[in-house]
Amino acid sequence: MKAFTKMNKDELLTLKKSLEQRYQEFKALDLKLDMSRGKPCGEQLDLSMSILDMKECTIDNIECRNYGGLEGLPSIRRLFAQLLEVDENNVIIGGTSSLTLMYDYIAQAMLFGICGNKPWSKLEKVKFLCPVPGYDRHFAFCEHFGIEMINVPMTDNGPNIKVINELIKDDSVKGMFCVPKYSNPQGITYSDETVKALAALNPAAKDFRIIYDNAYCVHDLDKQGDKLLNIFDELPKNNNEDLVIMVASTSKITFAGSGVSCIIASGNNLDDIKKRLKIQSISQDKMNQLRHFKFFENVENIKAHMQKQAVILKPKFDCVINYLNNELANKEIASWYVPHGGYFISLDIMPGCAKRVGQLCEEAGVVLTTIGATFPYGKDPQDSNIRIAPSYPPIDELSKAANLLCICVQIAAIEKLLNLKNNLISIVFFTNYYYLSFF
Amino acid sequence: MKAFTKMNKDELLTLKKSLEQRYQEFKALDLKLDMSRGKPCGEQLDLSMSILDMKECTIDNIECRNYGGLEGLPSIRRLFAQLLEVDENNVIIGGTSSLTLMYDYIAQAMLFGICGNKPWSKLEKVKFLCPVPGYDRHFAFCEHFGIEMINVPMTDNGPNIKVINELIKDDSVKGMFCVPKYSNPQGITYSDETVKALAALNPAAKDFRIIYDNAYCVHDLDKQGDKLLNIFDELPKNNNEDLVIMVASTSKITFAGSGVSCIIASGNNLDDIKKRLKIQSISQDKMNQLRHFKFFENVENIKAHMQKQAVILKPKFDCVINYLNNELANKEIASWYVPHGGYFISLDIMPGCAKRVGQLCEEAGVVLTTIGATFPYGKDPQDSNIRIAPSYPPIDELSKAANLLCICVQIAAIEKLLNLKNNLISIVFFTNYYYLSFF
Repeated sequence: MKAFTKMNKDELLTLKKSLEQRYQEFKALDLKLDMSRGKPCGEQLDLSMSILDMKECTIDNIECRNYGGLEGLPSIRRLFAQLLEVDENNVIIGGTSSLTLMYDYIAQAMLFGICGNKPWSKLEKVKFLCPVPGYDRHFAFCEHFGIEMINVPMTDNGPNIKVINELIKDDSVKGMFCVPKYSNPQGITYSDETVKALAALNPAAKDFRIIYDNAYCVHDLDKQGDKLLNIFDELPKNNNEDLVIMVASTSKITFAGSGVSCIIASGNNLDDIKKRLKIQSISQDKMNQLRHFKFFENVENIKAHMQKQAVILKPKFDCVINYLNNELANKEIASWYVPHGGYFISLDIMPGCAKRVGQLCEEAGVVLTTIGATFPYGKDPQDSNIRIAPSYPPIDELSKAANLLCICVQIAAIEKLLNLKNNLISIVFFTNYYYLSFF
Repeated sequence: MKAFTKMNKDELLTLKKSLEQRYQEFKALDLKLDMSRGKPCGEQLDLSMSILDMKECTIDNIECRNYGGLEGLPSIRRLFAQLLEVDENNVIIGGTSSLTLMYDYIAQAMLFGICGNKPWSKLEKVKFLCPVPGYDRHFAFCEHFGIEMINVPMTDNGPNIKVINELIKDDSVKGMFCVPKYSNPQGITYSDETVKALAALNPAAKDFRIIYDNAYCVHDLDKQGDKLLNIFDELPKNNNEDLVIMVASTSKITFAGSGVSCIIASGNNLDDIKKRLKIQSISQDKMNQLRHFKFFENVENIKAHMQKQAVILKPKFDCVINYLNNELANKEIASWYVPHGGYFISLDIMPGCAKRVGQLCEEAGVVLTTIGATFPYGKDPQDSNIRIAPSYPPIDELSKAANLLCICVQIAAIEKLLNLKNNLISIVFFTNYYYLSFF
């Protein structure tokens, strides 16, 4: 297929007409599809049903039906520690949501400061680095707390370290969000070099923290999966033990919203966190912790369980990627990354076209993640990024949605190109970074 | 029995000797008993075991295993609304802990202010009214957030309203903690007049809030129980809809720490809370909400369930009250209130003796709630109040502990009186308020 940018006006108009016909056919189907959020599908959830068989109430002589055990059951702390290859003493179990763990951590930093440093709310300015594209709920934290966000471009090895090293010279830069494995939305796993460089950061602010959201730590789409270097092994080499606050949860392992979350950090950081935690609660839901421990027992079983999920998810990811390959490859109007895990596919289309694609899709009954949401303040400076969440819809619906999306991406691109031609402006070649991959 | 204060030195010395002998006999038993916290006992927890039979995943077409539903399942919101006699739209379901709901509410007030008012952290001084004796975890909130606590004396109808009305003229007074039914530790239920007066408060601070911790809303020790007037019916009569933030939970109904909590407030207040909540989490544990809804289905079943708990708890309360009656009545060294529900018995002993009693008990292997903990800053100005938590220990152990406690109270009183006599100081008669009750 010829690159759109190399087509003349007539070629574009002809192509547009046929695409618009296909679009109208989809519209006639009266679709109602949702690809907006990273939700597990019913078949994935069904894999965890036997977690509900748990009838026990004690483990290691601990009565799980009663108060107590602020840090969580030793057995589930140990299981998370083994999964994430850290010391169990560096793990504290939270409630059902790692999001809440992050929120509460930042709220504590705002009100009380981190490890004896000045509360962030008492500072004139607090800034966070945000690898982009990224996770909208991280950005929502920053907006909520009045933290200024600074975009850091992602590379295919993780966030641009040079940019980070420059920005952290500013001591009002207090933190950074990372999704180090299968990043949201691109599905990029940080390279060993990136992890080592992050572990070696030397920020001006002593209370700078990397909020390391390991949401997809074991969420591989194939047996090998990506291997993320363990940052907790790297931190001590740089005397940087306190730099990283990691969170994880079983929300996308067992039941979304009814799982078990955890926070992993240095002794100093956990001591700091516990000062708040012991005031905020008596204990978390030990019955749910026990339920999860009994369901898995060990890391091998977690991995086997996730492979069963991969059997469900992989065809969905393949379906979308196939459409992208078949409909968009070599047209110089879109690029994407083929992830080996996680919950999303990130599609970069011709700048200035993403909102139009969102609109076209919505008018045809397909809801995408809000366009712009993958950037701070909901503002994609290029209006180019689209996040696709293939997990939830059944594959026949997903197939339609992906097909429609590809049609809309092409229509929007042609509209843009025709508009440029009409305005007698020379065509700016679409030269965004490109991670086209084929099977 | 003669009042201790009317005994001469010889009489006191003789009595002391026999009490000390009994004390030594207890010490020889090498007891290890804990009456420190309001924890349900195993038999109470056993009553909820069939909650673990729940295998369903949907209700009202809502998939409970997946994300979504920030405010909680409609069915469980409705159940709490019926139980607490409020509109279900005024109920938001939280996680497992009402303590966390209160903490998060105050944290939000500190950082963001309440309903558009100035954040408390930006004010020079924030004060809270604390009915005393009261719940140590409420006081811990205030200390944690740097909120100055002002003691408000309890009467047998609830906190002293005259004192409150005077104190709330100060606009730095931003809130008050209440446990309106079966108050912690006294077990006093606020009278209708008190509830009406609270609903009619006219504080100088527009962002003054009553944190209404309805922890024992359905925790009656006998069939009739105390009847608490519904403050939400009274608030509109005074155009005071936004004054009260109520919390409750099933922690002492089903499994402690694995229950379902809720927050009840006006639309204005809930809108304010939701601004934070939607950033802090995606949804709470709907599976646990469903589990609880299915276990109870309706208010009648909750009440019936609590009556089964009362059958277990009432003899424990009776046991302690009987010891108090038999060992301490008419000696003018102690007073107590006989609660009709809740989790505690509050014992006021001769001023200056509580710490000594705590020490004597501990040395004999019985742990009481930390002496002083029932007052802000852990400082009981009279060193007089002891909180007894009879729920957890088996009744034979509880019996020993209550017996020992009564011996220690008498020893400490005699020590005090002898000390006073030795110092040739005229005896100050113990004239604290008195709620002696008999069966």
